[in-house]
Amino acid sequence: MKTLNIGMIGYGFMGRTHTNGYCQANHFFDLQYKPVLKAVCARNEEKAKAFAQQWGYESVETDWRKLIERDDIDAIDVCTPNNLHKEISIAAAKAGKMILCEKPLAMNTAEGEEMCKAVEDAGVRNMVWYNYRRVPAVTLAKQLIDQGRLGKIFHYRANFLQDWTINADVPQGGAATWRLDAEAAGSGVTGDLLAHCIDTAIWLNGGITDVSAVTETFVKERTHAETGEKKPVKIDDACSFFCHFDNGSLGLFESTRYARGHKALYTLEINGEKASIRWDLHDLHRLEYFDHSDDSVVRGWRSVHVTDGDQPYMGNWWVPGLQIGYEHTFIHQVADFLKSLETGEAIGPTFRDALETQKVCDAVLSSAADRAWKNV
Amino acid sequence: MKTLNIGMIGYGFMGRTHTNGYCQANHFFDLQYKPVLKAVCARNEEKAKAFAQQWGYESVETDWRKLIERDDIDAIDVCTPNNLHKEISIAAAKAGKMILCEKPLAMNTAEGEEMCKAVEDAGVRNMVWYNYRRVPAVTLAKQLIDQGRLGKIFHYRANFLQDWTINADVPQGGAATWRLDAEAAGSGVTGDLLAHCIDTAIWLNGGITDVSAVTETFVKERTHAETGEKKPVKIDDACSFFCHFDNGSLGLFESTRYARGHKALYTLEINGEKASIRWDLHDLHRLEYFDHSDDSVVRGWRSVHVTDGDQPYMGNWWVPGLQIGYEHTFIHQVADFLKSLETGEAIGPTFRDALETQKVCDAVLSSAADRAWKNV
Amino acid sequence: MKTLNIGMIGYGFMGRTHTNGYCQANHFFDLQYKPVLKAVCARNEEKAKAFAQQWGYESVETDWRKLIERDDIDAIDVCTPNNLHKEISIAAAKAGKMILCEKPLAMNTAEGEEMCKAVEDAGVRNMVWYNYRRVPAVTLAKQLIDQGRLGKIFHYRANFLQDWTINADVPQGGAATWRLDAEAAGSGVTGDLLAHCIDTAIWLNGGITDVSAVTETFVKERTHAETGEKKPVKIDDACSFFCHFDNGSLGLFESTRYARGHKALYTLEINGEKASIRWDLHDLHRLEYFDHSDDSVVRGWRSVHVTDGDQPYMGNWWVPGLQIGYEHTFIHQVADFLKSLETGEAIGPTFRDALETQKVCDAVLSSAADRAWKNV
Amino acid sequence: MKTLNIGMIGYGFMGRTHTNGYCQANHFFDLQYKPVLKAVCARNEEKAKAFAQQWGYESVETDWRKLIERDDIDAIDVCTPNNLHKEISIAAAKAGKMILCEKPLAMNTAEGEEMCKAVEDAGVRNMVWYNYRRVPAVTLAKQLIDQGRLGKIFHYRANFLQDWTINADVPQGGAATWRLDAEAAGSGVTGDLLAHCIDTAIWLNGGITDVSAVTETFVKERTHAETGEKKPVKIDDACSFFCHFDNGSLGLFESTRYARGHKALYTLEINGEKASIRWDLHDLHRLEYFDHSDDSVVRGWRSVHVTDGDQPYMGNWWVPGLQIGYEHTFIHQVADFLKSLETGEAIGPTFRDALETQKVCDAVLSSAADRAWKNV
Repeated sequence: MKTLNIGMIGYGFMGRTHTNGYCQANHFFDLQYKPVLKAVCARNEEKAKAFAQQWGYESVETDWRKLIERDDIDAIDVCTPNNLHKEISIAAAKAGKMILCEKPLAMNTAEGEEMCKAVEDAGVRNMVWYNYRRVPAVTLAKQLIDQGRLGKIFHYRANFLQDWTINADVPQGGAATWRLDAEAAGSGVTGDLLAHCIDTAIWLNGGITDVSAVTETFVKERTHAETGEKKPVKIDDACSFFCHFDNGSLGLFESTRYARGHKALYTLEINGEKASIRWDLHDLHRLEYFDHSDDSVVRGWRSVHVTDGDQPYMGNWWVPGLQIGYEHTFIHQVADFLKSLETGEAIGPTFRDALETQKVCDAVLSSAADRAWKNV
Repeated sequence: MKTLNIGMIGYGFMGRTHTNGYCQANHFFDLQYKPVLKAVCARNEEKAKAFAQQWGYESVETDWRKLIERDDIDAIDVCTPNNLHKEISIAAAKAGKMILCEKPLAMNTAEGEEMCKAVEDAGVRNMVWYNYRRVPAVTLAKQLIDQGRLGKIFHYRANFLQDWTINADVPQGGAATWRLDAEAAGSGVTGDLLAHCIDTAIWLNGGITDVSAVTETFVKERTHAETGEKKPVKIDDACSFFCHFDNGSLGLFESTRYARGHKALYTLEINGEKASIRWDLHDLHRLEYFDHSDDSVVRGWRSVHVTDGDQPYMGNWWVPGLQIGYEHTFIHQVADFLKSLETGEAIGPTFRDALETQKVCDAVLSSAADRAWKNV
Repeated sequence: MKTLNIGMIGYGFMGRTHTNGYCQANHFFDLQYKPVLKAVCARNEEKAKAFAQQWGYESVETDWRKLIERDDIDAIDVCTPNNLHKEISIAAAKAGKMILCEKPLAMNTAEGEEMCKAVEDAGVRNMVWYNYRRVPAVTLAKQLIDQGRLGKIFHYRANFLQDWTINADVPQGGAATWRLDAEAAGSGVTGDLLAHCIDTAIWLNGGITDVSAVTETFVKERTHAETGEKKPVKIDDACSFFCHFDNGSLGLFESTRYARGHKALYTLEINGEKASIRWDLHDLHRLEYFDHSDDSVVRGWRSVHVTDGDQPYMGNWWVPGLQIGYEHTFIHQVADFLKSLETGEAIGPTFRDALETQKVCDAVLSSAADRAWKNV
Repeated sequence: MKTLNIGMIGYGFMGRTHTNGYCQANHFFDLQYKPVLKAVCARNEEKAKAFAQQWGYESVETDWRKLIERDDIDAIDVCTPNNLHKEISIAAAKAGKMILCEKPLAMNTAEGEEMCKAVEDAGVRNMVWYNYRRVPAVTLAKQLIDQGRLGKIFHYRANFLQDWTINADVPQGGAATWRLDAEAAGSGVTGDLLAHCIDTAIWLNGGITDVSAVTETFVKERTHAETGEKKPVKIDDACSFFCHFDNGSLGLFESTRYARGHKALYTLEINGEKASIRWDLHDLHRLEYFDHSDDSVVRGWRSVHVTDGDQPYMGNWWVPGLQIGYEHTFIHQVADFLKSLETGEAIGPTFRDALETQKVCDAVLSSAADRAWKNV
């Protein structure tokens, strides 16, 4: 068994999901490589130690530059807020480390281009944690599309609806709510949520040509969690856009954190000439499928419970009817990454894949600001 | 256009559904016969007149015997409580009238047999209003079964769950609540609700051999609506039974008026070797269909929205996607009955069909009383 | 009983729905006025006669001008293609007739303004058949909003998805497919489908300020049904737009006839600070309702089966659990119109209400043409 | 951190689920004890070694008696076919080991009683892996019932429907299909599937008084996987029963492996005077809840997405909207067991709890054999 020594930067929500992926991949997948939890890095040493203790990291660092220099680290996992992705990734690339970076790739396209150049110049393996590609039902959707089952595509629509910031007393900034602080997050729902929808969309339906968007910030001021000061909110609370895809289909996207009743309603639907598919994160183990070639009197949307051994990834889990959950998307991504070390083939989404998503996000924000269509 | 002169006995809930069927059938179906609302009969003349006025009956009677004697009446529609079905039907048969009798056929099998003999001796057309056979989705189920799409049947299950008698203050007896009075109704949920399930089951899956049942009366005493007296409740509040069908499949049936949250949840499901179907009155325009021959990775229950022109009855209504409702089952039954006058072919359910259901109901009640299996 | 003498122009799909409304309203609603089917008018006399025969119209006209002149007609029902709405309505107004006009009001805002002026100058009652307001679940939504249950509104979204024109062999023009011919229909999905969504939206959520839209025509040429000639398709096959409402909420609308698997998927969802609601024409008797004030551990979307006597219109139909269908929306509209004759109060949607929808439709088409935001 | 040294007997499907529980509990729950994977035991040494390698067991045994004698083992996990549960458990109890035994407890009640006596005489901690109690939605159901939210209970119904043995070519006996061999399994769906339903039912709704059952074996002969011989099938392919609970409610249970289209449809529903709940393993993260005290016009079944921090176990996982899956029930059971070592309080289901389920299973099989009601 070959090892892959992991150096993790950050210990928050995403630190847990990735680490769990490293712990579980080899239990369920037959792989030649096995991740070793070498070190976790965070400025707060006490918290880093507690995290290391809970998950079994062998050591702790408080300076990410030092972590990157360590010879016993093969891969750097970047789980910091978005405004540190660039600096860390470029440094890690220069140090010859593989990089697994949390999404979105960067604060903007310019940063993303620098990062792509860095990893490509250094020739290091790189990947971005757009995890939803590896929900079995979504991977199945990809297979169905690649098999040509949908025929010519007319419509792609996706939304990501939440409701956790409706209360105007939710602060901005700091550990739990940096996603509301434009300085740490870059943007609001566009980079946080729509980026997921866009990554999946490009993967499933190809490139996006141009976009027209609208954004809204419903709560104009929020207290900053660290300073206690009331400050203008500069992120987008909600964003909708339509677009053209290279294949001629129309796209429609929406995201908000003000959709009362929706916790994390990421849905996507694709309408093709011959068939349509639909998926919903709230019941992620199901794929809805409509096949126009079915006998007309019994034609209807099929609710496919994606838990059988012949469906993506599911042969590695339990038996038909028994579902898996959110965290498994990260386990699958780790397993695929480890497999790619065996085969030598790159797997997506790479930094360059993620740069495409970044470009669409930038075009969306620019379109909303200028109230005009923008090319990607 | 030939006419069919209707004499309706009763003006309650079922009086409305049947009369609406007579009014609407010719608007939507191409028929040679047209019902004429000749007379409605009820003891309460004032209420009968109001009903006649609202629906366009030409005349009113207060004595059903007189109605039966009228030469200008072709068909008697029996919408009284169950304890009058026998007497009226036999008299009508003797008078040579066609009879359309509300379900259940009778208070018990013995009565039902007399009634069958009467209509068959007289050679008059007869029909019982088991209306759910003519929900388009249920009729479609019948077609699918007859086409052999399900293969060998293993399981048939049905339930009819309501919650309207949970409150112990609901009285028994009288106009609105005669269904809780054993003298008027014969039985409780067995004759009222399970009879529907059994009629459909026999139609779809064939005869029932033997049954084992349990009944329960949760509220032991209720005030009688007419006398104000507190009296023991003699009907069954709930009834479950299992059975064997002639084709070797197992049946499981349940009905209750104490299932909080269910208004009229009549569901049925049939599991065959090759396919399964499922239906629910609460969304009556949908049929769930599972076909094992579908490609395995996209196999799942299909939700068929039964509103297309090639699905039963729907070519006579609107356009795909636009649903019809409860009352349409009676319109379909009227249309089919009128059509049968053209073709000369009997249509079900006839009195004799309904007698089979009556026999099962009797066996169920007897089994529950004796805590033993009973042959039908 | 007072009478309302109806003169119907057109006998197509909408002729049937309206006529059925006239036939049924008094069977189920307690009203002082009763419609009388005086005359139906169409250029094709034979078809008009067949229609009159089937539904009971007393007479037939082939020239709508003659119908309008008849003294025995109280109300003109306009069921023609859109390009005749203006001329007929203005003539009928001048003749002092009440007017019940099929939607959309007109070919464009300019026509609509003339029509409003005509009916208001003449002081005649007028109404437009935006029937979906009177689906019980939608009317219930209106009541919940008016009660303030949703609080401040953040998002309104609606779509109307169909799939019946995917096949490029579907012709344009003529009786069945005039909706694909820009000369008869004015626009494609915008006037046909989005107009419904917009009418409901304005009713539920107030006026629309500005819009940004995109349209697409997937099939560029279709044969004309009457000439057999291949002609460019000038209608919009698909249209999406976002908008701001006067109340500060964001709107998102989409319609298409290329969404494989959807027959008539008209859905709407409103997200408020305190509660959200959702509705779907495919299961029109249900309203989804999420109330944030519910105890958190059992909080969830409620599936409300809108069939109880205390829910809008349902006290006039059957018993809880038994659903009604599409055609009932027209019966309700007739009943409300008849009631308004008793009370003297106008009921919506009036021509002026429908003009607001027309303005939004025009802004949408103009925005799509210019790729720019447009004020309404 | 204190350790709990595990000795696992068996390495099949259940060996994986339990072992995963031991690996994951401390990653997500704050506990003073931590399981250590000391040894896995199986007759096939090669397979045992492969399993040990994959999951990190420190050693391998091929004789379970030897494992039980080892001083470095604190707890024995019994994952063998049912016919070995008794012998191993009694030996382990005598050796003073804690025992975590896969369900069902035993081949029959007599065995179960011996086992209970053994663990109670020895005073060793004991637990049976009825894992479905610890689906968060099911645990929430228990809390709602204990809070009195449902009021008096009228009905409890549950089913467990599968379709994997329809094909008559599926063999009996051996590693993958010992569940079809009566000698290894004791019974068919009764012990395999209904036992789960019964355990949950007793936990949620109290003891069962008497039962009436029917069983069926659809495929009469199957080839034995090990001998290749065609032998009579002695297990029950399907079983239904009704029962009375001590609290006066009626129970209705059904299980089969011949319900085409259902992979593992374990559903339960409880109807109380004040509220009802419903759950389905196929979407295990949802609980349906109907509360009669809701305002009547917006009353409906709530679909509760049980993923919030204030719902059972979910504070230890991700964020609202992100679901967990099947394997987590075992992680929860491990976590609760470890916690019980801290608190000293026993947690269920104990051997004695499981004995109650065994008694009901025996009564069910006896009732079916004799076609008569049986007391439990």
